[in-house]
Amino acid sequence: MDHSTPAGKFIVIEGLEGAGKSSAIALVKQFLTELNQAEPVCTREPGGTPLAEKIRTLVKEVNHDDPLCDEAECLLMYAARAQLVANVIKPALANGRWVLGDRHNLSSLAYQGGGRGMLPLVQAISAATLKGFKPDLTLYLDIPPKVGLARAANRGALDRIEQQAIDFFERARNTYLTLANADDTIEVIDASQPMDAVHRDILSALQRRLTA
Amino acid sequence: MDHSTPAGKFIVIEGLEGAGKSSAIALVKQFLTELNQAEPVCTREPGGTPLAEKIRTLVKEVNHDDPLCDEAECLLMYAARAQLVANVIKPALANGRWVLGDRHNLSSLAYQGGGRGMLPLVQAISAATLKGFKPDLTLYLDIPPKVGLARAANRGALDRIEQQAIDFFERARNTYLTLANADDTIEVIDASQPMDAVHRDILSALQRRLTA
Repeated sequence: MDHSTPAGKFIVIEGLEGAGKSSAIALVKQFLTELNQAEPVCTREPGGTPLAEKIRTLVKEVNHDDPLCDEAECLLMYAARAQLVANVIKPALANGRWVLGDRHNLSSLAYQGGGRGMLPLVQAISAATLKGFKPDLTLYLDIPPKVGLARAANRGALDRIEQQAIDFFERARNTYLTLANADDTIEVIDASQPMDAVHRDILSALQRRLTA
Repeated sequence: MDHSTPAGKFIVIEGLEGAGKSSAIALVKQFLTELNQAEPVCTREPGGTPLAEKIRTLVKEVNHDDPLCDEAECLLMYAARAQLVANVIKPALANGRWVLGDRHNLSSLAYQGGGRGMLPLVQAISAATLKGFKPDLTLYLDIPPKVGLARAANRGALDRIEQQAIDFFERARNTYLTLANADDTIEVIDASQPMDAVHRDILSALQRRLTA
């Protein structure tokens, strides 16, 4: 991003199912609204535009007679992302708005790359599609898959991706942690703590990163 | 493809709108049916599986409030292709069936790569997704865009891609010809000839390539 113009910033919340993304997003939204005296544009992925929401449906639904292959899943995720970046995120940032994302590219690297064991494919498509565009700050809510999935299951029926075996989520978590370790725009938050401690750590990270 | 097993072959018909693909496909289908004493599996792209047909709809429809960006168009094309290759083409070939395709990867290289001026992106996604899988033989029906589009317009309303400016199709044609020139599995057929001469050239190419 070109920071010579008063562009907004792109903040993303990442994490496995049940990591507490929803309450974290509400907290970060409130923080950003007070910081900027304006609400951020909130996005979710896959989705966030009319077309990308249709793609989200294709990715989430279970189709026994035409099971979604791993490559198609990855390409659909990036099609939805390309559409969201081009038609929502970049225009908002260019207009000085801040954007708060519920998942972004790191999810594809973790789930399709790590979870499905095809990180080189995902990295190639990521580089070709995004051409270096990335969030200014990502908060990764880290939680053991067993803990997160138990929480997610309490919320209702699991979708196609949530139905993967526990190994899939272990690989995704390892990829999240490896990538976070190599990228200083990603903050790891210990989301297995009690919620008030998680929220304290999130606010602390936001203050340190955004109000310096 | 591994030709040590009695796998089928994958034959593809390519060309701009109005090049005469439909009648060429009927002719090739008849030829292959007589050659193999069995009808080929016929596919069309984008499409050819339940999911890929839904993707085809997303790519073809005009959406003024969320215009399809070039990158998303390309990724959707490859998502549909990955699904078709995994769930239809490869299983058919492995079972000894021949497959006759109405468009395949060369269309993306020509339209999204050449037409939209993003050949490096398309080639990167193509390589990552298809990992070397390609047709045994492609017949490219070559026609000047003005001639083809006039024919296509006579068939009814033009879809989103058919509504592109003539320059788009000129660039796509140039890319088709450049790629055909560099790949000896692609035969160029002069489709601006009268139909009986086109069909004679198609049959001649099939006999030379498939019955040697």
